[in-house]
Amino acid sequence: MRRPLLAPLLLLAPIACRSAGGGGGGAAADGRAQRQQASRPDWVLVVHGGSGKRLDPDLEPQYRAGVEAAMRRGAEQLERGGSSLDAVEAVVSLLEDDPLFNAGKGAVFTHAGTHELDAAIMSGRDRAAGAVAALRTVRHPIRLARLVMERTPHVLLVGEGAEAFATAMGVERVDNSWFDTPRRRRQLEEEIERQHRQAAPTGASMGTVGAVALDRAGHLAAATSTGGTTNKLPGRVGDSPLVGAGTWADDASCAVSGSGKGEQFIRHAAAARVSMLMAYGGRTLAQAADDVIGSVLRPDDGGLIAVGSDGSVAMPFSTEVLVRGVVDARGRFEVAIGHP
Amino acid sequence: MRRPLLAPLLLLAPIACRSAGGGGGGAAADGRAQRQQASRPDWVLVVHGGSGKRLDPDLEPQYRAGVEAAMRRGAEQLERGGSSLDAVEAVVSLLEDDPLFNAGKGAVFTHAGTHELDAAIMSGRDRAAGAVAALRTVRHPIRLARLVMERTPHVLLVGEGAEAFATAMGVERVDNSWFDTPRRRRQLEEEIERQHRQAAPTGASMGTVGAVALDRAGHLAAATSTGGTTNKLPGRVGDSPLVGAGTWADDASCAVSGSGKGEQFIRHAAAARVSMLMAYGGRTLAQAADDVIGSVLRPDDGGLIAVGSDGSVAMPFSTEVLVRGVVDARGRFEVAIGHP
Repeated sequence: MRRPLLAPLLLLAPIACRSAGGGGGGAAADGRAQRQQASRPDWVLVVHGGSGKRLDPDLEPQYRAGVEAAMRRGAEQLERGGSSLDAVEAVVSLLEDDPLFNAGKGAVFTHAGTHELDAAIMSGRDRAAGAVAALRTVRHPIRLARLVMERTPHVLLVGEGAEAFATAMGVERVDNSWFDTPRRRRQLEEEIERQHRQAAPTGASMGTVGAVALDRAGHLAAATSTGGTTNKLPGRVGDSPLVGAGTWADDASCAVSGSGKGEQFIRHAAAARVSMLMAYGGRTLAQAADDVIGSVLRPDDGGLIAVGSDGSVAMPFSTEVLVRGVVDARGRFEVAIGHP
Repeated sequence: MRRPLLAPLLLLAPIACRSAGGGGGGAAADGRAQRQQASRPDWVLVVHGGSGKRLDPDLEPQYRAGVEAAMRRGAEQLERGGSSLDAVEAVVSLLEDDPLFNAGKGAVFTHAGTHELDAAIMSGRDRAAGAVAALRTVRHPIRLARLVMERTPHVLLVGEGAEAFATAMGVERVDNSWFDTPRRRRQLEEEIERQHRQAAPTGASMGTVGAVALDRAGHLAAATSTGGTTNKLPGRVGDSPLVGAGTWADDASCAVSGSGKGEQFIRHAAAARVSMLMAYGGRTLAQAADDVIGSVLRPDDGGLIAVGSDGSVAMPFSTEVLVRGVVDARGRFEVAIGHP
């Protein structure tokens, strides 16, 4: 935290796990949403670093530190009047460089022992969206997603074609092995061994990252980036880069980034569903998000972060943990991992 | 039409363009939906062969014949008690072989002068779904989509990974040039020339195919297959293979297959939106489909076909034409192209 601008904000803000919320708690969440509707904060940023099983206690402080660093970067931009779109891109690209998270450096391994990266970004103002999937050599997939949005008439580019576009755009490239980390390789080996034993999944793919934000101009944006699931078939695309499944933004309702069993989020159009429960079903953001995670999806399918156009925040999850944080213009700065 | 079973049905059925419906006509559509709700047909199949600008009059009879052949194949299966999932796969795979349509043989060319094929299939009973994108050598993309659904834990496979899966499954392969047709090559040349002149689009990508069905057991299914848009960047994925964008099925509401400007369908989660307008907004199928095509999407963005769990049918479009047909257990057999 180098910029003095935010120092008072951060000093004032307690790191309060409890109030960072979770799934369930409908009534409390409603109250919170209503209070925020009365006078919305000038800007809000919510960040996640994946859902899944309880973390190794040794790693917990590192996960917290990673999310906090990303929150500070995004908060600084939003405080200065930057756009929500720029903020979520900056947050996600920082987390892509953190080897702890399953996005960019530190991404999980495919069944073939390689890495394939997916990302999406969406602007709530005009529904512009850009996404990439099955990338192999792009250091920051979220940046390429942004370029798909701004430099092509398309929304989603995949595989070789997306790599060729990366070359045309001149974004930073790395060898596929640059994404390797010993921890993720061990997880691949464990996952293959687990499959042979037909044992229960280990949740080893933990660490998809995402951000949603509301900026001073009242615009929403969402971004998500992931390496997918450990041991996935090459070419598999999950929900993260799919608009409406794992990423969504619409100024009329909310911005959403999901984390969990991607195929489940796809089959239920989970991210768009939160928005449509609000738009067509009259739910508050908290109710809509709880409905999707608690009723539409199955227990243990995952979680999501969402911010409404009124500044309300929801972060429900049905897994043991959702690494998450929220920061806003009023000095709220909270990071949490488990259920409250 | 070789099977005697359906002959009486087909002889009785007039080919009535007018009642095959279009966009707009909300009140008439409502009445129709209500009548059908009162006693639903034992099965219903709706097929489309793409939306766009007015057809070359010379081609119109061929488009009709292609759609009719596909309708007969699907109707035969549904009449015998086959599943909606098998019927939509059979319909779409037949259209993939028809060089007139922009799916399989006859697919449009990418900017690189190649073909890249996308398809998706979804079961309304259990929300199982399978999809493929950026395929280059698979003769029937819809069959590979079905195999993704049934043989993998995934929903979407793309590019090289999807090709490797095709090899593992032993599906029929062809050289990429097998998909070539002189008409589509001419369209690529025209489109590139048009871009240089910065003239208005020609609608040359016409011909995405899709089918939605309700079977005797009351289950819905949807399938869509496409070559995408003429002159697209390699790696570009449109709405067709994306669950919730161009393809959707949910026994609780409806099955949908879209056709039009794919990026618009993605940004608005168009197919899932029809279903959610019904589920959360209390709309009838006809109202929900008209809302999405007439209000949510822009004029000229495209059209969709949909069948409800009550047997109601909607086929709105905001383009000049939507090649479409509906056949049901009561002897309805209608094909239409332009607005009524």
